[in-house]
Amino acid sequence: MIGVWLEDGRVAVRDDLPVPRPGADEARIRVLAAGICGTDLELLRGYRPFRGVPGHEFVGRVEEGPAEWLGWRVVGEINVTCRSRARGVVSPAGPGDPTPCRACAAGRPTHCERRAVMGIDGRDGAFAEHLVLPVGNLHRVPDAISDGAAALVEPLAAAFRILEQIEVHASDRVLVVGPGRLGRLVARVLHTTGCDLTVAGRSRPALERIEARGTRGVHAPDVRRASFDVAIDCTGEAGGFAVARAALRPAGTLVLKSTYAGELTLDASALAVDEITLLGSRCGPFPTAIEALVSRRVEVDDLIDDRVPLVDAVRAFGRAAEPGTPKVLLVP
Amino acid sequence: MIGVWLEDGRVAVRDDLPVPRPGADEARIRVLAAGICGTDLELLRGYRPFRGVPGHEFVGRVEEGPAEWLGWRVVGEINVTCRSRARGVVSPAGPGDPTPCRACAAGRPTHCERRAVMGIDGRDGAFAEHLVLPVGNLHRVPDAISDGAAALVEPLAAAFRILEQIEVHASDRVLVVGPGRLGRLVARVLHTTGCDLTVAGRSRPALERIEARGTRGVHAPDVRRASFDVAIDCTGEAGGFAVARAALRPAGTLVLKSTYAGELTLDASALAVDEITLLGSRCGPFPTAIEALVSRRVEVDDLIDDRVPLVDAVRAFGRAAEPGTPKVLLVP
Repeated sequence: MIGVWLEDGRVAVRDDLPVPRPGADEARIRVLAAGICGTDLELLRGYRPFRGVPGHEFVGRVEEGPAEWLGWRVVGEINVTCRSRARGVVSPAGPGDPTPCRACAAGRPTHCERRAVMGIDGRDGAFAEHLVLPVGNLHRVPDAISDGAAALVEPLAAAFRILEQIEVHASDRVLVVGPGRLGRLVARVLHTTGCDLTVAGRSRPALERIEARGTRGVHAPDVRRASFDVAIDCTGEAGGFAVARAALRPAGTLVLKSTYAGELTLDASALAVDEITLLGSRCGPFPTAIEALVSRRVEVDDLIDDRVPLVDAVRAFGRAAEPGTPKVLLVP
Repeated sequence: MIGVWLEDGRVAVRDDLPVPRPGADEARIRVLAAGICGTDLELLRGYRPFRGVPGHEFVGRVEEGPAEWLGWRVVGEINVTCRSRARGVVSPAGPGDPTPCRACAAGRPTHCERRAVMGIDGRDGAFAEHLVLPVGNLHRVPDAISDGAAALVEPLAAAFRILEQIEVHASDRVLVVGPGRLGRLVARVLHTTGCDLTVAGRSRPALERIEARGTRGVHAPDVRRASFDVAIDCTGEAGGFAVARAALRPAGTLVLKSTYAGELTLDASALAVDEITLLGSRCGPFPTAIEALVSRRVEVDDLIDDRVPLVDAVRAFGRAAEPGTPKVLLVP
């Protein structure tokens, strides 16, 4: 099959990849569209070691596997956990172990100690014609959701993760730092709470896009200090973190919604004195994201900038890496 | 009066300090005992600018002020806030402003934007024969509490602050890093929850003291990784933070219970991926600490190592700075 292959920091589109074969309780899925996200670009830059097919945001149709899944359009959670494997699956990360790890036993499967992560760690991903996932990872996609919107369910769920972790009230002043792909999704999710929302960034065109939808945009250097109850850094950069930190009032909450390239240096005494909460945030609830798209509580179709054929993936990665580019979808 | 004076990084005991005069709604207190804490030692080392009388952990007796307070033995909260000043107090930080700041208006007086902090920032403290505080800051001390224990109410309240910020269950595995003055108080407070408690440190004698009271002590390099639900760093050092961070399971909580000298560098991506909560923690509830001492839920008398006359304060600071020294009290 055709697919993107990453190895030793080199990425190429190949046409000789073997079509993956599903194990028990797994499904093979024909990919309809797959989104490129910041984590993918980090993998391509070699910030993390990964060998295989990248890509973890996708929509597809089940073409092989358990009968009750055949023919369904699906999206899939990215963490392949103990629980999946305990059902008898033999995954690339090793054969099943019937004893769950401590995280799975404690009901935190996204933190499974023996997890593989599709397209990121130990398991092939979605930048290919076909992929395989345990059926326990799949969610059916209602017809009301377009392929493009469905490909954004994974990052939208990650944005909704914030609302599982903290309560956001209508009276809260919330700052989203970074008006890019992730920041715009996060802003739309926060908007559903009715909070007093501001998005900060350095790109004037990006802020204009934010304001065109009725959300307040502020040039990052002009963000009012010590004034926000919650700040969410979606930039993954020290500069974005600094904007979020300075914007927080004492006893406020700073959400780290992005991975960071490199380390972060912070004034820990000030964190203690100001009683700041720093909160890491990763994978979120797919059902909530799907419901939000069906009910149109959150709309995402306008966030998709471009559809690029899978064979042109390398060009698409270059385009996705340009500042201010919304979501680019690869279409097999 | 006799008192410690800090100015331009030089500390001295002086006998020519003016006896402070209380304003409206303030009380003058004769100091009975005052504890030396890590923050004081940081001030003496010049990590923060402060000019005046240091000291913020004390017990004393009201000798001038409103009639209902006269003669009472008291302890005092250290933050002098908008609210105190709105009552007409003229404090060293300026005359009263009847409009509360945003923090006070929001019910977070310990984060008052215009606060002075006794012995730390903008207001004289307790290493003297007398001090002045707004009566709104004072708490009466029941007879069941000794002077020595009462001098520890302020840091004990700070330890109880943790239980205001997070829920600790009996099933939780909790690690306290740092078996020193603050860590031992924090461990005793955490012990009241019935949690599975471990204290980590590098000093064998300190760990032996911990174990002598029935709490598990572990040499810091031997702490089991990714195994604790909650870790509390009481060291204020990068090494202690690293022990706490490594000990946490995914989605665990790391409490910063100490101020830090200098900045802290951390792997922010790992915080996001592991969904760690970092939580700064400062001043806590005096009534809870007083109740815990009266009911003997927490005992602290054995934590007091030494009583040193105020005139020998400089020697006492040197002694308090030695590793492993429990609480040193200055007695006027």
